[in-house]
Amino acid sequence: MRDAEAGGLIRFVKGHGTQNDFVLLPDVDARLDLTPALVGALCDRRGGLGADGVLRVVPAKAVGEAADMAADAEWFMDYRNADGSVAEMCGNGIRVFARYLVDAGLAGQGPMRVATRGGVKHVSFSPDGSLTVDMGPAGFPGPPDVTVRVGDRSWPAASVSMGNPHAVVFVDDLADAGALDVGPHAGPDGAYPDGVNVEFVAPAGERHVAMRVHERGVGETRSCGTGACAVAVAAARRDGEVAPAAYTVDVPGGRLVVTERLDGHVELTGPAVLVAEGTLRDDWVAAHR
Amino acid sequence: MRDAEAGGLIRFVKGHGTQNDFVLLPDVDARLDLTPALVGALCDRRGGLGADGVLRVVPAKAVGEAADMAADAEWFMDYRNADGSVAEMCGNGIRVFARYLVDAGLAGQGPMRVATRGGVKHVSFSPDGSLTVDMGPAGFPGPPDVTVRVGDRSWPAASVSMGNPHAVVFVDDLADAGALDVGPHAGPDGAYPDGVNVEFVAPAGERHVAMRVHERGVGETRSCGTGACAVAVAAARRDGEVAPAAYTVDVPGGRLVVTERLDGHVELTGPAVLVAEGTLRDDWVAAHR
Repeated sequence: MRDAEAGGLIRFVKGHGTQNDFVLLPDVDARLDLTPALVGALCDRRGGLGADGVLRVVPAKAVGEAADMAADAEWFMDYRNADGSVAEMCGNGIRVFARYLVDAGLAGQGPMRVATRGGVKHVSFSPDGSLTVDMGPAGFPGPPDVTVRVGDRSWPAASVSMGNPHAVVFVDDLADAGALDVGPHAGPDGAYPDGVNVEFVAPAGERHVAMRVHERGVGETRSCGTGACAVAVAAARRDGEVAPAAYTVDVPGGRLVVTERLDGHVELTGPAVLVAEGTLRDDWVAAHR
Repeated sequence: MRDAEAGGLIRFVKGHGTQNDFVLLPDVDARLDLTPALVGALCDRRGGLGADGVLRVVPAKAVGEAADMAADAEWFMDYRNADGSVAEMCGNGIRVFARYLVDAGLAGQGPMRVATRGGVKHVSFSPDGSLTVDMGPAGFPGPPDVTVRVGDRSWPAASVSMGNPHAVVFVDDLADAGALDVGPHAGPDGAYPDGVNVEFVAPAGERHVAMRVHERGVGETRSCGTGACAVAVAAARRDGEVAPAAYTVDVPGGRLVVTERLDGHVELTGPAVLVAEGTLRDDWVAAHR
């Protein structure tokens, strides 16, 4: 089972963070030819291994687009969406990525810097097994009066940017949003020319909320790292909390903690689970390149 | 990564037949303690590896319920549903099972007998890579006048048994059945006390049909082996074909060929694909037993 182009076995690790799941492809020699077709086939949940995305683990110095980060971060998280397209950053994925690096002996379990298409990210490990990533500062780009509509119901929403756009809706009960099988509409028209992620948030306790998320281009998912961050900073503003404020955010796939620091950066803390590891079948790879 | 109860690594293989997908667990020493919880966790598509079911590969002589088949079949297909319950047989799964046996050197690529909870099954290999399994005889148990209803539409249906019950509906276009997110109703009331699998069948050529299937207790799936068999024998009767009659049956996950033999047995032919192989993480297994 050798991969003709990579000159060796294609190894993989399957893992997830709050059930946002990934196929990691260790590529320490930077020899893997990762085509969009192969990424799509890997992420196919019935014909392949199945995942929300692929995380190639490659030295930053070996990748042109990451080479300028190599002085700060040894490893580059080459993140691909399930459709094969490249992606910048994923707050759930980077925890799994960091967990793998430590588990494989490629990094020590101390503060870690990881190169991503969204820049160098800082990751740290807690004694309880959770990992924290600095997601950068939140932004409040407006428009000031956003309305989210699902079917014939509508709600006012808070507009938050975590690098990507979010519209956060506070509801009394997460069931209020209905089935979410069709994407919510967020307006006014033209407010989000590239689409928007929509979060519905219900109270779950003091500095504790529960959320559902509809990710643009994907649908309702079990977790969204930037969505949890957007929800927590919107909730802190609604509640009149002053940074540093830590919110517990329950997502359908588990529990995250979001802390807004005094400097405005948002830290996302959560689990990272490695499930299995192995090798792809060579004949299968050859059929899906 | 040792499994304390099995005394060694838990290995796995992921494979599929027309996108009906399985986690195979080779257990040649019959030492694996396969709890319903572990099966469910393995089949979870985001928290585990993800599959429609688990196929444990174990010597028939080592398993009490299969020991009386051991003289006829060396290997027992211990098939579990994604919810952890035991299951009898699966026409797509047994092809993947047989492919694995040959690939692993546990059986030769000749006519093969496999022990299942549905009895000893005969599998054979074709030069084109497809595999054929004898699914046994079809039955026509009635009731004579079955009606399938989806929303406010209804159709007459043919009632076919392949060991499990099927209601086969002929339509002009597979889209006629709608979204199938809610299970179709098949009546008269009381006709199927244990539920029924419902197939919608549209013409695709001479002795060639396309189908969709709603599996009882599961929902719409990409393939159903017994469903394809039921569809083909119902189509042959509608068309006035005399056995042996071979029908090509397109399912959403690929293409199957069903042949009704002169002796009334139904043969199902299709692909079996092995995707990847590896080991489960010991810490993950310990957390999901």
